[in-house]
Amino acid sequence: MRMSDSPTGRADVGDLFQLLRDGVPRTRAELAKSTGLARSTVAARVDELMRMGLITAVADAVSTGGRPPSQFALNPSAKVVLAADLGASHANVAITDLTGAILAEASERVEIAQGPEAVLTWLVESAQRLLDETERSSADVAAIGIGLPGPVEHSTGQPVNPPIMPGWDRFDVPAWVQRHFPVAVLVDNDVNISALGERAVAWPGVDHFLFVKVATGIGAGIVSDGRLQRGAQGIAGDIGHVRVARGVDVPCHCGNHGCLEALASGPAIARTLRDQGVEAHTGDDVVALVKHGSLEAIQAVRQAGRDIGEVLTASVSLLNPSVISIGGSMARVSEHLIAGVREIVYTRSTPLATEHLTIVQSTAASKAAVIGASILAVEHALSPAGLSTAFAPA
Amino acid sequence: MRMSDSPTGRADVGDLFQLLRDGVPRTRAELAKSTGLARSTVAARVDELMRMGLITAVADAVSTGGRPPSQFALNPSAKVVLAADLGASHANVAITDLTGAILAEASERVEIAQGPEAVLTWLVESAQRLLDETERSSADVAAIGIGLPGPVEHSTGQPVNPPIMPGWDRFDVPAWVQRHFPVAVLVDNDVNISALGERAVAWPGVDHFLFVKVATGIGAGIVSDGRLQRGAQGIAGDIGHVRVARGVDVPCHCGNHGCLEALASGPAIARTLRDQGVEAHTGDDVVALVKHGSLEAIQAVRQAGRDIGEVLTASVSLLNPSVISIGGSMARVSEHLIAGVREIVYTRSTPLATEHLTIVQSTAASKAAVIGASILAVEHALSPAGLSTAFAPA
Repeated sequence: MRMSDSPTGRADVGDLFQLLRDGVPRTRAELAKSTGLARSTVAARVDELMRMGLITAVADAVSTGGRPPSQFALNPSAKVVLAADLGASHANVAITDLTGAILAEASERVEIAQGPEAVLTWLVESAQRLLDETERSSADVAAIGIGLPGPVEHSTGQPVNPPIMPGWDRFDVPAWVQRHFPVAVLVDNDVNISALGERAVAWPGVDHFLFVKVATGIGAGIVSDGRLQRGAQGIAGDIGHVRVARGVDVPCHCGNHGCLEALASGPAIARTLRDQGVEAHTGDDVVALVKHGSLEAIQAVRQAGRDIGEVLTASVSLLNPSVISIGGSMARVSEHLIAGVREIVYTRSTPLATEHLTIVQSTAASKAAVIGASILAVEHALSPAGLSTAFAPA
Repeated sequence: MRMSDSPTGRADVGDLFQLLRDGVPRTRAELAKSTGLARSTVAARVDELMRMGLITAVADAVSTGGRPPSQFALNPSAKVVLAADLGASHANVAITDLTGAILAEASERVEIAQGPEAVLTWLVESAQRLLDETERSSADVAAIGIGLPGPVEHSTGQPVNPPIMPGWDRFDVPAWVQRHFPVAVLVDNDVNISALGERAVAWPGVDHFLFVKVATGIGAGIVSDGRLQRGAQGIAGDIGHVRVARGVDVPCHCGNHGCLEALASGPAIARTLRDQGVEAHTGDDVVALVKHGSLEAIQAVRQAGRDIGEVLTASVSLLNPSVISIGGSMARVSEHLIAGVREIVYTRSTPLATEHLTIVQSTAASKAAVIGASILAVEHALSPAGLSTAFAPA
């Protein structure tokens, strides 16, 4: 059914609901005033939204004498969403309510290189277990949000040339998942959903926000003007392959030389340390060495921070963010990493760009991605377009 | 009056008008179908919009027997807007209709360094002359858009620490202009308005667009997801002070070394040529030399293109645009400039980022900025917020 075809359809209740999405309770009179609709129209639409289960009557407003007027607000448990963060070698899945609060979650070591069928089967089975656990059914799922560790064409939900995801190139993730859950499936890369999640948890009012993940790879998630920016092919924020001046001779797995990722990722720092005779193979080894006070490791992490700072200086000039949040596994030694970043960004940027710039460690850590995936799903489900399918009468 | 207070106010007609803004003629029946409003409500709102002069009845729809239904569309000459592009040493001002079509314009050599009172007095007097010329009155002006050659805090319309604009720092441009024209005054920097104008003229459907101005300075205007991006302090796109690897010893007027502007702007190329014994002082000199076939000048412009390409490679990774348009006075020798840009961007970027990337010379040239200023003003005047003041009954 087209939204505009029916006088009692979702198009009519949609405007009222978009007001009520923020969770603030309002009376019918307040709704009439805000929308300019007649009282009788408001009353009918409130009834329809109640019938759909999207809103509930909440604690009565302060009485001004006589019967106190009822207030209405979003019903956070009208439906649930499914949120998944699929990494290179880990997977997190959660059920959240419509405010993004986690109701149940599961984590497991899952290799993304097993291919889409194996990984998504794990996802679907885990989701079903979590639904059972929370006593919800698959009919309660309003939408699904999934993060993947590679470039994703957001409009189709398909990974595009993902370097560490054999078998996933152009795989139709939404279609596969919809065979089990026939709802909207939103797919994005893991750094983008982490940016959404980190911002929601730690910087909710910040409209110009950059999240930088430093782990096996390096990438950024960009929020400009309050909206996640994906670019024309969905690969905005791919800063791992920007060239850094000092690395002109260092080969990168992408085929170029001097990429940021070839100099400042966890494995790259480990390689630098091996060249100095220090035993280190992974980013985890580097983190362990720093925590044991290895001077070489501390110096190498600080230099990686400077390299990242060089690229972030260009990002600061281009995007003029007010907060840069650094996450990913290497952020566990963030005091040295961020010191290097700050050293370069504050030296190289214009005063106006850094006057109100904050550079900090991410706080939501491993939860950021799954919270971001939930936001992606909830935003869609409660949007005017999503509403018509996610809350269609059974 | 608050928009929601009155049942016959602009809030009610606004939804219908937002549909009709695109200029496509629609019948009352089509409007009822698109909005889900009752026919009688649509009829009343159409009458109100006609009364306000915002829409007009246009050529009748194809008859299906009986009296043909009337169609309605935006009335482009309901009001006019005032658009100005104030550069370092030139000024353009125009009157446009509500589709951005220029009705009258004026250009003059005006030094921005004369300060805000002198420059804005010229602006107001020129605007009054153009209004007389087009037989419109100041009451017909719906809004004003102004571009300035420096950083502007868009929310207040105030220049902030503009390097080449003595006397303008924190000057309240809207308040001053409103003493003569009591309407909304939107102020932005000249590269941002050029990006809006160039996109509207040459790339209307492109949602991820980068405009780069190469002249006395170097800056970029960013359109992401169809929206102009200004950043937290309104200085997004300030790429002139990003460091370029080869320029580590070249001092910049900003106090740092190796800035793109110190290497690849018009005056910087002229300096490179002087160091080689070639007589050149300004960007115009460089352009003249290139047009006369000077090999040194051609090589210097191509190298400037490579330097710009180095910074744009980072921009391509970060923003993933589909079109980069190069304008400004140095783009008059764009074949050499753009060859250098392409050489580096296509060598250094990831295949996915450049697969569908177009890098071209700007086509709107000097008109881009004033068209962009008009768009800024029209967008505001016809927005739900702008409507209530720009079209308030006299």
